Amino acid sequence: MDHLPSPRDHFRDKCGVAAVHGHPEAANLVYLALYALQHRGQESAGIVSGDGQSLHRHVGMGLVADVVTPKELARLTGSHAIGHVRYGTAGESSLENAQPLQMVHRRGRLSIAHNGNLVNAEELRAELEAEGAIFRSTTDTEAILHLVARSRAPDVVDALVDALRQVEGAYCLVLADESRVIAARDPHGIRPLSLGRLPGGEPVVASESCAFDLVGARFERDVEPGEVLVFAPGTPGERRLEHSLFPFPPAVKVPCIFEHVYFSRPDSLVFGRAVAEVRRALGRELAHEHPVEADLVVPVPDSGVPAAIGFANASGIPFDVGLTRNHYVGRTFIEPAQSIRHFGVKVKLNPARALIEGRRVVLVDDSLVRGTTMAKIVHMVRESGAREVHVRISCPPTVSPCYYGVDTPSRNELIAARETIEQIRLHIGADTLGYLSLDGMLRAAQGAPGEFCTACYTGQYPVALHASQRRYAGTARLPFDDKS
Amino acid sequence: MDHLPSPRDHFRDKCGVAAVHGHPEAANLVYLALYALQHRGQESAGIVSGDGQSLHRHVGMGLVADVVTPKELARLTGSHAIGHVRYGTAGESSLENAQPLQMVHRRGRLSIAHNGNLVNAEELRAELEAEGAIFRSTTDTEAILHLVARSRAPDVVDALVDALRQVEGAYCLVLADESRVIAARDPHGIRPLSLGRLPGGEPVVASESCAFDLVGARFERDVEPGEVLVFAPGTPGERRLEHSLFPFPPAVKVPCIFEHVYFSRPDSLVFGRAVAEVRRALGRELAHEHPVEADLVVPVPDSGVPAAIGFANASGIPFDVGLTRNHYVGRTFIEPAQSIRHFGVKVKLNPARALIEGRRVVLVDDSLVRGTTMAKIVHMVRESGAREVHVRISCPPTVSPCYYGVDTPSRNELIAARETIEQIRLHIGADTLGYLSLDGMLRAAQGAPGEFCTACYTGQYPVALHASQRRYAGTARLPFDDKS
Amino acid sequence: MDHLPSPRDHFRDKCGVAAVHGHPEAANLVYLALYALQHRGQESAGIVSGDGQSLHRHVGMGLVADVVTPKELARLTGSHAIGHVRYGTAGESSLENAQPLQMVHRRGRLSIAHNGNLVNAEELRAELEAEGAIFRSTTDTEAILHLVARSRAPDVVDALVDALRQVEGAYCLVLADESRVIAARDPHGIRPLSLGRLPGGEPVVASESCAFDLVGARFERDVEPGEVLVFAPGTPGERRLEHSLFPFPPAVKVPCIFEHVYFSRPDSLVFGRAVAEVRRALGRELAHEHPVEADLVVPVPDSGVPAAIGFANASGIPFDVGLTRNHYVGRTFIEPAQSIRHFGVKVKLNPARALIEGRRVVLVDDSLVRGTTMAKIVHMVRESGAREVHVRISCPPTVSPCYYGVDTPSRNELIAARETIEQIRLHIGADTLGYLSLDGMLRAAQGAPGEFCTACYTGQYPVALHASQRRYAGTARLPFDDKS
Amino acid sequence: MDHLPSPRDHFRDKCGVAAVHGHPEAANLVYLALYALQHRGQESAGIVSGDGQSLHRHVGMGLVADVVTPKELARLTGSHAIGHVRYGTAGESSLENAQPLQMVHRRGRLSIAHNGNLVNAEELRAELEAEGAIFRSTTDTEAILHLVARSRAPDVVDALVDALRQVEGAYCLVLADESRVIAARDPHGIRPLSLGRLPGGEPVVASESCAFDLVGARFERDVEPGEVLVFAPGTPGERRLEHSLFPFPPAVKVPCIFEHVYFSRPDSLVFGRAVAEVRRALGRELAHEHPVEADLVVPVPDSGVPAAIGFANASGIPFDVGLTRNHYVGRTFIEPAQSIRHFGVKVKLNPARALIEGRRVVLVDDSLVRGTTMAKIVHMVRESGAREVHVRISCPPTVSPCYYGVDTPSRNELIAARETIEQIRLHIGADTLGYLSLDGMLRAAQGAPGEFCTACYTGQYPVALHASQRRYAGTARLPFDDKS
Repeated sequence: MDHLPSPRDHFRDKCGVAAVHGHPEAANLVYLALYALQHRGQESAGIVSGDGQSLHRHVGMGLVADVVTPKELARLTGSHAIGHVRYGTAGESSLENAQPLQMVHRRGRLSIAHNGNLVNAEELRAELEAEGAIFRSTTDTEAILHLVARSRAPDVVDALVDALRQVEGAYCLVLADESRVIAARDPHGIRPLSLGRLPGGEPVVASESCAFDLVGARFERDVEPGEVLVFAPGTPGERRLEHSLFPFPPAVKVPCIFEHVYFSRPDSLVFGRAVAEVRRALGRELAHEHPVEADLVVPVPDSGVPAAIGFANASGIPFDVGLTRNHYVGRTFIEPAQSIRHFGVKVKLNPARALIEGRRVVLVDDSLVRGTTMAKIVHMVRESGAREVHVRISCPPTVSPCYYGVDTPSRNELIAARETIEQIRLHIGADTLGYLSLDGMLRAAQGAPGEFCTACYTGQYPVALHASQRRYAGTARLPFDDKS
Repeated sequence: MDHLPSPRDHFRDKCGVAAVHGHPEAANLVYLALYALQHRGQESAGIVSGDGQSLHRHVGMGLVADVVTPKELARLTGSHAIGHVRYGTAGESSLENAQPLQMVHRRGRLSIAHNGNLVNAEELRAELEAEGAIFRSTTDTEAILHLVARSRAPDVVDALVDALRQVEGAYCLVLADESRVIAARDPHGIRPLSLGRLPGGEPVVASESCAFDLVGARFERDVEPGEVLVFAPGTPGERRLEHSLFPFPPAVKVPCIFEHVYFSRPDSLVFGRAVAEVRRALGRELAHEHPVEADLVVPVPDSGVPAAIGFANASGIPFDVGLTRNHYVGRTFIEPAQSIRHFGVKVKLNPARALIEGRRVVLVDDSLVRGTTMAKIVHMVRESGAREVHVRISCPPTVSPCYYGVDTPSRNELIAARETIEQIRLHIGADTLGYLSLDGMLRAAQGAPGEFCTACYTGQYPVALHASQRRYAGTARLPFDDKS
Repeated sequence: MDHLPSPRDHFRDKCGVAAVHGHPEAANLVYLALYALQHRGQESAGIVSGDGQSLHRHVGMGLVADVVTPKELARLTGSHAIGHVRYGTAGESSLENAQPLQMVHRRGRLSIAHNGNLVNAEELRAELEAEGAIFRSTTDTEAILHLVARSRAPDVVDALVDALRQVEGAYCLVLADESRVIAARDPHGIRPLSLGRLPGGEPVVASESCAFDLVGARFERDVEPGEVLVFAPGTPGERRLEHSLFPFPPAVKVPCIFEHVYFSRPDSLVFGRAVAEVRRALGRELAHEHPVEADLVVPVPDSGVPAAIGFANASGIPFDVGLTRNHYVGRTFIEPAQSIRHFGVKVKLNPARALIEGRRVVLVDDSLVRGTTMAKIVHMVRESGAREVHVRISCPPTVSPCYYGVDTPSRNELIAARETIEQIRLHIGADTLGYLSLDGMLRAAQGAPGEFCTACYTGQYPVALHASQRRYAGTARLPFDDKS
Repeated sequence: MDHLPSPRDHFRDKCGVAAVHGHPEAANLVYLALYALQHRGQESAGIVSGDGQSLHRHVGMGLVADVVTPKELARLTGSHAIGHVRYGTAGESSLENAQPLQMVHRRGRLSIAHNGNLVNAEELRAELEAEGAIFRSTTDTEAILHLVARSRAPDVVDALVDALRQVEGAYCLVLADESRVIAARDPHGIRPLSLGRLPGGEPVVASESCAFDLVGARFERDVEPGEVLVFAPGTPGERRLEHSLFPFPPAVKVPCIFEHVYFSRPDSLVFGRAVAEVRRALGRELAHEHPVEADLVVPVPDSGVPAAIGFANASGIPFDVGLTRNHYVGRTFIEPAQSIRHFGVKVKLNPARALIEGRRVVLVDDSLVRGTTMAKIVHMVRESGAREVHVRISCPPTVSPCYYGVDTPSRNELIAARETIEQIRLHIGADTLGYLSLDGMLRAAQGAPGEFCTACYTGQYPVALHASQRRYAGTARLPFDDKS
């Protein structure tokens, strides 16, 4: 059932992409890569493979292992493939928006998978529609396909460059035609994209390097900001052809610091740094900035764990897993009519009273969005006997929405955009509350101011926004169900 | 899983359409109308409803009652709706081709459902692609959407007329934008389309009048060849607006005689005649042209029944149901490795030996395509003890493919295009074989030569074919699984 | 979800059974036989196969082709198998009651499938429970398993005979242990059971002979009333062993006449007569007993067709298919809130106005239970323009429930048990109404009074009922959804 | 599809049970309790509720949140309920074995859910079958139902006591008849069972106290070894009746130490101790017994985490999460034909190279069964750059199968039963390997020798085994898929 939403709705995107070229099991390797990138999107998944003659496509709603069954995988024949996982958001999600998108145009077939968000998507769409273009999805990605189809350039690669010169914003793309794979990263390098090699030298492109680990590929390097990489089959008996283009004017590089703080997997290398190390450094900085007398450092599982370890190491306060996570979460539960206290949080987390009782606890988490979940956790930890509860957040207060591909709530819904730190502390019921400073965060990430996009903490957007973004800021949604 | 087939494949279409405007349960009424039209297509089904603000769409593979669940139906809100059922063909069927198709263009949303086949679809597609158009389906219908989107006309109705002036072939269309329903029938009137009224006067449009019976509407008239009907909401407090346009140059009217012979439901009024009556008349003519001494007239169920009754009445030979149909057919059966004689036919039909044994049997059917099924039936009837088996077909030999919306096999696969009647008789093992003559058929349908399209029997195509049709004639497929 | 109903509920059963012994594809042949017997039960289906070492079982709710997928069929290995289809009744149906039932007892495994109904089932159950027996289903069949398990006889066949000596009522059984198939029919021979042979001589047992036609077996003979047939593997190199026992005291033979009137398939041989012939004879007798001046004989599809043909032949009034049946019925439809006249019947049947208008119509059906459906049909036929509507029923008025395996409604719900024929005529709105007489029915079936069970027409029960039957008569249900 | 296995197969069981009495949402509370106990069994789940008149049952294969949908839950009406989750084992699992089992016997209905394993189940079964009993499942639990049904005692509670006097082994039971809940724990107290109270005082019984936390109940006490608790509704206007019986002769108490080591959830209180505390103490003891010079303590997630924290705290070596767990595991993955190194482990775990590279790593896990998984992990950690890899196991070598309800592999499959510690070290490729001693384990659990069942570490079985156990030891299976 797709209630096609208004074409003027806000475009959203928080995704992972992967591609393989020149391997007889390309679709299976992309499938595994998407599985490793599953944390980047659980709403829909899709793979397109190419066999030199045609493209084979399968997309569906849900996790990659549910969408891509062995039977479907067997049909995704050919030696190159691209894939996509998309963030789970309610209501406006639909099969029509599931990627890779695909078109037939005069040059043949083309498929595209996109991680990021274009800031001039609505303007482009309005222009294209005025010229008679037909849209089927509400993704910004579809505009790129139209621009490619309309380009006068004879070859798809040139047409893609034509198209990308007209878009602004954040994008990491993988595309496939009948025989080639193309990867492209926007000139600002906001979202991550890396290049790896399979044991036989075949290229793998993925949003994060953890995908390489699973498929047995080694990390080679990041796809550079502004780079377009083309992988094509060689003439028979020869090796594959690889081209690297830099067709765009130079731009300031502003990788997204939130990939380090929360989004990427800890075992990935992102923007040249190991995420695991950056997160521990964030925790250590946090311990230095907001020391506290306490007995126990407890992470909010699972994303708070690395920073909590860093905090514990720097502070000397013992680390422990004081909140037990239920591994079967993710399904719907029916709360009894005779309501249970903290039901929504308890279904996911249970405090280990034996560890907490009588102790002064430092709760470490990596972000605070609306504050409601943290308020319940603090309360629950107190009921389990904690003498004091101190909350530490491993990044600065989140005050501004993201327009570059993270699905954040509107400014009004961000507690830190409305309340002072003391008000937030009262709201969540903590004895003390400390956020990491912007400087502390940049120190941990080893970046100078301006070397990262920190717009969500500062409201300073390195790529100029268009009117449409500002207008729809109020309707956007939180990416993290666990963090309301 | 959709293996997008080559864009140069043959376009096929054999479908039913329905629409309702101005009724609070529009989608439910369209759903019931599609259920009554289910015999026109079992591959996919879909409904789009409109509520004045937006369109709601649901399409899926399978029968309408499986695709449109009560839950989905509840979401198809609004007071107008259109729907579509599509013929079941293997391999190239896909969700992307399921109709109604839908687009967002600069005028808003537009949905379209199509019964028929355009003869210049490939030429249009090539031109549109050259101008940068993107295709997602392999239906000819999508070209109409592009032509609408590119028209300079400000209103959708004018843009649709612009578009239809560029297409050639057979079409009955229903379209919906946010507030209106549009119905259109090609100037030749090849496929049927009728207008009915609900008890409150609200219009219903459907491929056949049997859909009106189920929803409690009465038949008003056929939509005329070349007519465009527009249903729009009136100003508040006023009644709905209805316009009838005839924007195309006049053309010869050639309704498809095969709708009477086989395709339409016997309880429908089609092209001004009751199908039930025409079929009995076909059987009577057949009895006059090919009399035989026999004890029993047995129809090949179910489509052979009306002609068999006509044959029995005219010949005075008793009619009886000598072949019992299994009502649970339609699923897959696994034939044992130790193969069973006539398994494929037996799963569907079983001869009643008590009726057949020792009798001279006339088997009446409405068409003979490849002849293989009939050969099995004749053999099976003989094994049940028939003394003689005479086969009578209630139309002339089928010698040419249809390019106007019936999914026929290529000429090479049509037994009557390759073999003489005597060769066919030997092939199917009948004692005698008689086909109704062209004149006999036209007499039964009360039409003079030229008043019907009889191309499948004569090879004379009233609407000029394009090169592409001739080229792809060899790859088309049979519509009737029961008739190979 | 199984709400295990009260163990004192009425036991119901209207089913089909099949078995094959000594064939490498035994389960597949039983599957096809069940498919041919599908009209005898659509609630649940199941197959048990045996491979000499163990039994493999698969049962499920629904049609056999839905329940037994190719994957499941592949697991049902071994050279003998039994199967069961069960009538669809609402509410108390459950997977626990799906047959074949299976037990592990001290002699090994035993599976059983049952068509019929025991009249002393509740008494047996009470006795068994008093001795510590545990029940899981609410079928009467389970009591037979307990009696077998408790018998002192060393062999299963003897134990089964012991058990059957304690039960009263109607039963046709097929059973399987690890290596044998046993078939048994009650001494009164109330329900049908036949023996056929595959081309290699392997035995097939089935409720009706139409199952033999599909699997390529020939009809050999009926299993005799009171006969127990045992099929066992021979010693290596020898042929199979077959035994026929008649271990019960002689009893009056009273086959169920309703099998001929309605239940069996027309292409079956039942109790030595072809069902198709008996039904036509019923129609002929009906024409003689209740002649009428009319223009058209129209059957209520599909079960009224054979009697209508007989009526037409005997009366000289032309037969025609004036009611078009929708072949996609069987699913749920949502009636619009703005209700449609005769919706429930229209979804299944549509009158062909062209045939009916201005005509005097004889509607022929094979039974009238509550009368509500017929009232709607008569009304609908009149609205289609019939000048007169005469209803003819090819059996006597149904006045008493069946306790031998047909799931009839209670006496109160049977219209003929409460009203006179004239009252019924008024109720259904017919111009005239005629039921076949008991004598006419017996003449058609070529039986003298007492040679058939006619309890549902006479209230004279040939096998004495127990108190429990009389008590629960009020709660039983109609077998025929189409006939309310 | 259920291939009913040989009745002589080994009985297996590793489960969780829960019950609620006297609460209007009993089934929902049991459902939540089962969700909290999901780690004790993922093969099947089921709930039976009682409403004073009847019992309502729903069981299915899979996780409780998949099996018990909101729709099913709504049907499980009544104010008391029992539930069960069962361990996931391949092949012989079947719906017939899903609990709660249910029977109808002469006293009415009775449902039972069982955690544990009877050692004389086969002997009981043989005796019962000899007396004519019928079995449907291959669980040992069904024998208890038969013993209850055959008891001469008029009331179910007395009959249950009669039955339990005849069984030997480990059991925690919850049972329900139409109005009561009964809980029973074997005299040795091998498996855990606790009693909690809802805010209104209504009793909750569950295998572990973590179930109480989720439903908002408080822990009251353990159900005592040998105790039978009966909860019945009081007379109208009065409060519920609760009885505690100790009907069995006294026996030595030997709670299962493996519940503390691995099986129970860390946030549960089991046998009077907090599991979280015991596990950290196990890690501390391990650090004292097997010290090592190293840079990092890395747990094998998730079960190795608590002991690793204890080890880190006692040793002063920093703890870190060096292995990233994929949260989407649990589905099937297709390994490419061009095989990927360590694929099976990599799909679940990925080493964080940034943390591990150049470090001396202590890997801490809670058990080692076959050793194959640990060998892959050690290898993978070395490939990520670890300079040294030291393996520490927080219990003694597992040398004997469990016959009291843990589904262990046969002795032959236990690596520690066949190889010396040095051989195991070589096998897994570790630099050093240390197991906690029996004394160390008992110290951590604060128990003297003989106060726990330690049979899996010592081969000394506190409850005498029967011949059948010894016979089938060779065919049993590993409970822990992650630990092969």
